Amino acid sequence: MNKFYFTKLVNAINHKRLDAMLIVPSDELKFIIGESPYLCERFQGLFVKKDGSYFYVCNLLTSEEIQKVLGANVKVYDWFDGDNYIDTVKKAFVENDLIGKTIGVDSTTRAFEVLDIMNNLDVKFIDAKNMLEEIRIHKTSEELENLRIASKIADEAFAEVILHIKPKMTEKDVKEKLCNIILEKGGESPGALVAAGANSSYPHYIKNTGVIKEKDIVLLDYGCVYKGMKSDISRTVFVGDITKEQKKVYDIVKNAIEAAEKVVAVDAFIPDIDKAARGLIEKEGYGKYFTTRLGHGIGYMGHEAPDIKASNPRYLEKNMAFSIEPGIYIGGNFGVRIEDIVITTENGTEIINKASKDMIIIK
Amino acid sequence: MNKFYFTKLVNAINHKRLDAMLIVPSDELKFIIGESPYLCERFQGLFVKKDGSYFYVCNLLTSEEIQKVLGANVKVYDWFDGDNYIDTVKKAFVENDLIGKTIGVDSTTRAFEVLDIMNNLDVKFIDAKNMLEEIRIHKTSEELENLRIASKIADEAFAEVILHIKPKMTEKDVKEKLCNIILEKGGESPGALVAAGANSSYPHYIKNTGVIKEKDIVLLDYGCVYKGMKSDISRTVFVGDITKEQKKVYDIVKNAIEAAEKVVAVDAFIPDIDKAARGLIEKEGYGKYFTTRLGHGIGYMGHEAPDIKASNPRYLEKNMAFSIEPGIYIGGNFGVRIEDIVITTENGTEIINKASKDMIIIK
Repeated sequence: MNKFYFTKLVNAINHKRLDAMLIVPSDELKFIIGESPYLCERFQGLFVKKDGSYFYVCNLLTSEEIQKVLGANVKVYDWFDGDNYIDTVKKAFVENDLIGKTIGVDSTTRAFEVLDIMNNLDVKFIDAKNMLEEIRIHKTSEELENLRIASKIADEAFAEVILHIKPKMTEKDVKEKLCNIILEKGGESPGALVAAGANSSYPHYIKNTGVIKEKDIVLLDYGCVYKGMKSDISRTVFVGDITKEQKKVYDIVKNAIEAAEKVVAVDAFIPDIDKAARGLIEKEGYGKYFTTRLGHGIGYMGHEAPDIKASNPRYLEKNMAFSIEPGIYIGGNFGVRIEDIVITTENGTEIINKASKDMIIIK
Repeated sequence: MNKFYFTKLVNAINHKRLDAMLIVPSDELKFIIGESPYLCERFQGLFVKKDGSYFYVCNLLTSEEIQKVLGANVKVYDWFDGDNYIDTVKKAFVENDLIGKTIGVDSTTRAFEVLDIMNNLDVKFIDAKNMLEEIRIHKTSEELENLRIASKIADEAFAEVILHIKPKMTEKDVKEKLCNIILEKGGESPGALVAAGANSSYPHYIKNTGVIKEKDIVLLDYGCVYKGMKSDISRTVFVGDITKEQKKVYDIVKNAIEAAEKVVAVDAFIPDIDKAARGLIEKEGYGKYFTTRLGHGIGYMGHEAPDIKASNPRYLEKNMAFSIEPGIYIGGNFGVRIEDIVITTENGTEIINKASKDMIIIK
């Protein structure tokens, strides 16, 4: 059990006037208890109560494994596949005085289970996803250092993968190459979105079935994990040649990320950061093609607080970590995105991705 | 849009007296519409109404991509990151007469979003996971053929991977080897659980950090996808030597799977299949170590209907596909599981995994 975060979590539960918080297997459970068992369709999760006590509910098949993680003094309520899990949840709630109470849920708990439980027991679940993100919004120095290393691995992988990209490769080939490079460099759990040609115009394109053509545009968005901390970088490169419009769009996006990164500082107003990039893109006439927020927080999850967008009217504080990723996505034609992770330390703003943002035409 | 399943889905929605069904990106969305966009923390999903019409709700960043999949005539309700998605959901529900109505949810929809929507709009969500599984519980001949091929790839991979397993390899090494063999054989999205020594006693162990020792037991549980259909097989092998107790337990589990497979037939009562394996294991005094159901349905999802367990009092019908996987898990000591996929066709029962179930001691 991570005592530092556990104490923060219990304080947050009380501050939000919840009676308990449910956290199911995910990176969020891992950062609290150090492990995350396999989550199949069977209900399971950690319930942390406002008094700081906690218990776990899971199928019999996971109970020995989780008991070992939580220690012998923590109650694990389990049931056998032949029985109804609701009976076990009921027993746990009765014994822990949670009947009639309010329980927060994380980012991963599934709707069908919560709806089933509410249908059968007098208990109210509410969304507490943000609460769980807020307790880790200020990164520790160790977390910041691991974020830097995760980003460095991503930067180095970029320098290497562009030596391999060429026409006739599939997006999947590039993805596999990139992920292997990351693994060789010590990054864990690599993930990559590779979008060639018109596919680059869909910001979350993940099909990986496209083929790189002569004179194509290739958008790379990828990352990995280092000691629990995630990296996330996007670069857009050109194979063989670049069109006049692509060049124009690339310069606008590059100017936009640089403009936004200049505004990042402790005490900066988050909407102003978004505005710095968006205003510039709008002025150039491409505003309607910048279809996303400017960025997202990052850490134990790839996307977490704080969102960098106009509708998040708060001020940056010390030791926050987030992406800055303006993009121009001309649907069905092409898209350009450039993304860095930026942190706000006591020494000022630090753009932890160092990979070149200069236009790269792979010959 | 898969018309065959779409028609079944609309019939099921009416039969269950729902007003609509929500299906979010997952293998379940893919089998209905042919694609599954990337699901990040932003809400998105397909709403199918009881009158057979449908619409999609997603962030602006996914809307062009999904519009292309659904066709120009289908309404896609989108919102920009700077706005509140609840406003867009409200607009969609008002225009589609879903205010005050009941909407089913699938296996993947997240609780925090459904709780948020119910908190803001007069609408009721209920668990309809099983409904979505029931419409595909009878496999088509094409699906059965793809299940056979997916299982054949898994069988061949077993014969190959055991040539490589040896002491000092990590569980991760074996997993990577196995996944690479599967990919070479044309299986997609391979996944594997490799548990050596005491780790084999935890049925859903996924850490992959263990090292194979001399005279160790190794449990392999893995599968892949072929044209949308999944395979799932477990075999337990011995490296170098076997203890007397391991030999005894292995024989019991092997007898148990063979006994259960003999009971499988069209019109067999599902609890009787479970009983055939469990009774045998109980008679040998290991009943308390068989901590799971006997099996689960398989198809577009790795686990789907029908569950093979005492508390599922129904009869097998033609063209069902499911696992038979008895196991004995002696917590902290060792575990043995043997798993086949079995189908009930018009020609009788077919055990589609052909990999040997004989005891294998790797020398």
